[in-house]
Amino acid sequence: MNGQNGGPDSVAAKMKVAAVEIEGALDNLLPRSDGPEGRLYEAMRYAVLAPAKRLRPILVLAGADLFNVSRNSALRVAAAVELVHTYSLLHDDLPCMDDDAMRRGQPATHLKFDEATAVLAGDALLPLAFQVLADPDTHADAGVRAELCLDLAQAVGGHGMVGGQAIDLAMQQGSANIGTITRAQQLKTGALIAFSAESGAILAQAAPQLRHALHAFSHDLGLAFQIVDDLLDAEGEEAAMGKGVRKDAAAGKATFVSLLGADRARTQAGILASQAVEHLEPFAANGEFLRSLAQFVVQRNR
Amino acid sequence: MNGQNGGPDSVAAKMKVAAVEIEGALDNLLPRSDGPEGRLYEAMRYAVLAPAKRLRPILVLAGADLFNVSRNSALRVAAAVELVHTYSLLHDDLPCMDDDAMRRGQPATHLKFDEATAVLAGDALLPLAFQVLADPDTHADAGVRAELCLDLAQAVGGHGMVGGQAIDLAMQQGSANIGTITRAQQLKTGALIAFSAESGAILAQAAPQLRHALHAFSHDLGLAFQIVDDLLDAEGEEAAMGKGVRKDAAAGKATFVSLLGADRARTQAGILASQAVEHLEPFAANGEFLRSLAQFVVQRNR
Repeated sequence: MNGQNGGPDSVAAKMKVAAVEIEGALDNLLPRSDGPEGRLYEAMRYAVLAPAKRLRPILVLAGADLFNVSRNSALRVAAAVELVHTYSLLHDDLPCMDDDAMRRGQPATHLKFDEATAVLAGDALLPLAFQVLADPDTHADAGVRAELCLDLAQAVGGHGMVGGQAIDLAMQQGSANIGTITRAQQLKTGALIAFSAESGAILAQAAPQLRHALHAFSHDLGLAFQIVDDLLDAEGEEAAMGKGVRKDAAAGKATFVSLLGADRARTQAGILASQAVEHLEPFAANGEFLRSLAQFVVQRNR
Repeated sequence: MNGQNGGPDSVAAKMKVAAVEIEGALDNLLPRSDGPEGRLYEAMRYAVLAPAKRLRPILVLAGADLFNVSRNSALRVAAAVELVHTYSLLHDDLPCMDDDAMRRGQPATHLKFDEATAVLAGDALLPLAFQVLADPDTHADAGVRAELCLDLAQAVGGHGMVGGQAIDLAMQQGSANIGTITRAQQLKTGALIAFSAESGAILAQAAPQLRHALHAFSHDLGLAFQIVDDLLDAEGEEAAMGKGVRKDAAAGKATFVSLLGADRARTQAGILASQAVEHLEPFAANGEFLRSLAQFVVQRNR
């Protein structure tokens, strides 16, 4: 830890400021009611507003900072991404899926509320994300709004996040090789991370080569993120992580760590993070926050 | 039954032709794969392509027929609506929700496959609907595509379909009054029916008063539809319905039928259908198919 410019402390401080801003936007967008649907809304708020790193929405803000994007536009897209991410956690934690009891340092939503409410809260968070993106308040140009909806839909559907979760469940037999794991993770976590990093370029209607640079960055970053996730599952502490650990080993699930070993996995994550940063070359000094986020991803301990 | 123009036989024939066309569009849009995600795609196809009335997508086509909308645009929106409707059935049938074993004349998806696959298939169908709507192939004008996404998102989210399902679950204590039931059903089934009937006007960028007429039509039609649904649950046969019956009574759930009695409920559905048809006056003869659909909704036996 050091306090120099660009060092871990200043990255952590920048991330904290961004997270607070994002949480304010989420609080405004999430519904409230005293009616019979109030319990549903309460569950949505419980899951979304729990303490969290907010890595994906922070990536949205950092990507938008590369361009001349209004803070309101960037924050709305950031919030939409976090709504989708939280929906995926709600459904992944269900007893019929990964059956997780703890999430974000608190009981999973299906335990705090009930299973039906957890399913429905996820089912309401996903369309809320599209509602936010398609709203004229997000961007004056309807072409940008439609593209955001199209790209998010592709990132989270059967050829994206949900397809990755399906492969992940199929892999719990333990027989997967590194190619299958890489593909599953690119879909399961990589696709939404890519949307997060690229959305600023969509908002700015940036040149295709700049968007491609961000895509390449997020591709490497997403894999590095997942390898570190596997390492933290194998080596981390439940209290620090805010969720159950040793889940992969208990499930006999093939992961980057079980196939590569912890040391090679750690080396690989570092290589990927360095590779990711190289793709930011076109942005020169403007890419500083994104660069430090890539370092955060491999150095994080939760 | 008679074969005169506009009589039940000709409506049934028109609906059958439209259903075949819609099923062709769905077949084209649904993914296939031999990879590890193939099981997910198979479950999506199993649920969507099962024999069904296709009432909501047929409403889209009938609404689009009022205007000069291309068949391709109308069919894509119709397919999107059916994808969303099927996703809602998949999740409503889950053990933690309504726990239904039969749907569309075949075992529910969570029984034919497994619970996790049923959750994920629903989770993949919803974004596929937004992907279809946001795709430039649906409409050349991005403003129309963004509006379709925005309106669908509102119709199916926490202030729409999912909110209605949450109220419906809360009502299973049996203590609801007619006002609560009406509101729950307007959200649970009415909102998507309204989107279906209005989407042609969105595609055609029609004058607001024409869209309002379709909204008023679908408001009455949606309630009539739900009352008949309650009647069929109370009086229909499982074989003809293709799903379990007497579910409401077994659950001790308040419905239009339990509160009004079957005779008054039937009368009320007829009144609502007539009222719905009156709102089609601005469309004169062009509204014939929509008028006959309103009659179909109250006369159907499954």
